[in-house]
Amino acid sequence: MPVLNYEKLRRLSVEIFKVAGVPDKEAELVSEFLVKANLAGHDSHGVIRIPPYVKRIRKGEVVPGAKLDVVSETHTTALLNGNWGLGQVVGTKAMKMAIEKAKKNMVGVVCAFNCNHVGRLADYMMMAVEEDMIGIAAVNSLKGVAPYGGMERMLSTNPISYAFPTNQEKPFVLDIATSVCAEGKVRVKLHKGEKLPDGWIIDKEGNPSNNPADFYSGGAILPLGGEVGYKGFGLSLAVEVLGGILSKAGCSYLEAKKGNGVFMEAINIEGFISVDNFKEEMDNLIRAIKNSKPRPGFDEILIPGEIEFRTEQKRLHEGIYIPEKTWNEIKDTAKKLGIDIEEFI
Amino acid sequence: MPVLNYEKLRRLSVEIFKVAGVPDKEAELVSEFLVKANLAGHDSHGVIRIPPYVKRIRKGEVVPGAKLDVVSETHTTALLNGNWGLGQVVGTKAMKMAIEKAKKNMVGVVCAFNCNHVGRLADYMMMAVEEDMIGIAAVNSLKGVAPYGGMERMLSTNPISYAFPTNQEKPFVLDIATSVCAEGKVRVKLHKGEKLPDGWIIDKEGNPSNNPADFYSGGAILPLGGEVGYKGFGLSLAVEVLGGILSKAGCSYLEAKKGNGVFMEAINIEGFISVDNFKEEMDNLIRAIKNSKPRPGFDEILIPGEIEFRTEQKRLHEGIYIPEKTWNEIKDTAKKLGIDIEEFI
Repeated sequence: MPVLNYEKLRRLSVEIFKVAGVPDKEAELVSEFLVKANLAGHDSHGVIRIPPYVKRIRKGEVVPGAKLDVVSETHTTALLNGNWGLGQVVGTKAMKMAIEKAKKNMVGVVCAFNCNHVGRLADYMMMAVEEDMIGIAAVNSLKGVAPYGGMERMLSTNPISYAFPTNQEKPFVLDIATSVCAEGKVRVKLHKGEKLPDGWIIDKEGNPSNNPADFYSGGAILPLGGEVGYKGFGLSLAVEVLGGILSKAGCSYLEAKKGNGVFMEAINIEGFISVDNFKEEMDNLIRAIKNSKPRPGFDEILIPGEIEFRTEQKRLHEGIYIPEKTWNEIKDTAKKLGIDIEEFI
Repeated sequence: MPVLNYEKLRRLSVEIFKVAGVPDKEAELVSEFLVKANLAGHDSHGVIRIPPYVKRIRKGEVVPGAKLDVVSETHTTALLNGNWGLGQVVGTKAMKMAIEKAKKNMVGVVCAFNCNHVGRLADYMMMAVEEDMIGIAAVNSLKGVAPYGGMERMLSTNPISYAFPTNQEKPFVLDIATSVCAEGKVRVKLHKGEKLPDGWIIDKEGNPSNNPADFYSGGAILPLGGEVGYKGFGLSLAVEVLGGILSKAGCSYLEAKKGNGVFMEAINIEGFISVDNFKEEMDNLIRAIKNSKPRPGFDEILIPGEIEFRTEQKRLHEGIYIPEKTWNEIKDTAKKLGIDIEEFI
């Protein structure tokens, strides 16, 4: 059960991807995304993905170094064909283009199709925040979520993300599935032999279930909102349209659906008010909320992104714990590529 | 308990606002919004608002005919000072500007401050849909919602709205509070003497309550999501920033907060794919979802906006039922203005 230093883990990841045929810059980029997810505490989007990514590269499903095509472009919008390059490469290109457009024209919206798994949206949003802009993203993927009132998987967990720059406070970064939970959380419960909370999933007959195995035998995750799940369903559908239709990537319900459909937007604050004024008001809002009284049973009020920043600080110092199973799979992947893993730990 | 024809009710509303000093065009516009809300089944945003609007005009809080100032403008963005004109007038101007900008530059984002109650967001979104565009809106107002884990009112019900054009199917129009429920729904339960469902509100001590009176004696509505209410809280905060900070309108938590802070966006589909292609895919998505199996306990799956379209058809034929109390208040308002209400019914 190794605990690895961030930089060592990143270098190992870079080496694995390079030997697997990924160009240097892309290997650096994708490794940065994966290890940052571990740092933030979202291990489901971290180095656990190295073995399946390498497998998909070998199968030709992920094409390292793929040339991206700009299918259409205006001074505020663009549509990218990712040609099945690494999702992080396509996603980064999309967000960078959106930011460049917003710099010159106040708003930039870039969509992408033929795009593999892009990883955590929060990281793209931070690219906007670092440029003092607002970031907004919506992404669809493979189906696993039922409509409100429905029992079939028709939608993906369809995450939506917003980020806003701040002055002295940590940036506000929201990155959430529009379903009650992400698939990874159901899998964790299954592996731990634990029951699911009420209202997370239905079984294949459409009945409520607390057994995570029921999801994997034809059940579905429910949209956010419980009794008012029509709200989460509506948000999920909005993400589906932005990420799946406007992007040309295809909707989650389609059997042939692959990868992520990407919608990324940057808004230049200077189009409205000064960045200084905006950041000051952000700090004021965050402080007012954090200084308001917690409910019985809660110690404090957390702003979106706050727990991830804390985990990052902790793991930068204490290292990243990698579960035995994940570590063995990574070692196995490295060995097959002829990499001496001892050099990296 | 009168049941009024749509057109008659609209003409009565126009007459009341005109006599109250509202310029003809504004009286038409605001009446259209109010009566359309009744048609859609959202009576809380309908003609029930006539008496308080007239009262606020008399007090000078609402300024009919106020000249809007464009505080700053680029080819894709604008910030409007509504100078406390009627919210529907300011909101309509904002959305129209966003659409015009999106026609020429693919994306338009317009924010507004010093703006009174704008009414239902869905109606602004339909303006985008009618121009074959995507509409997005976020609006903040007065505080009534607690943060996730908090017990104080710090946020408003902070609605968010999305609409997408379709071909043969009805347009997709989502217009939801990011809290579990809108304040109006708590008030209805109070008036009916009914208990609230679990998870809607907390009392002033921060404990869960089913008694609607507890909201009005210092309690708060909870953010969307129940146990995962940090998701609804995050969305609510995003709306707060777009509607309250970027717009310069001020955040809900501020004691001095008045009116609505407005964020409206139009996205031109042609920046990405053809409108025909988009609408065809929208129809396919809606049909696939509606044709998927309902869960036990549900007869069918409803797309956002569908129930409102059905209610509209019904009420256009059968008329709009106005509760006695609302009708008496409207009659009283009309009488004070010297209007013979019999001429209109």
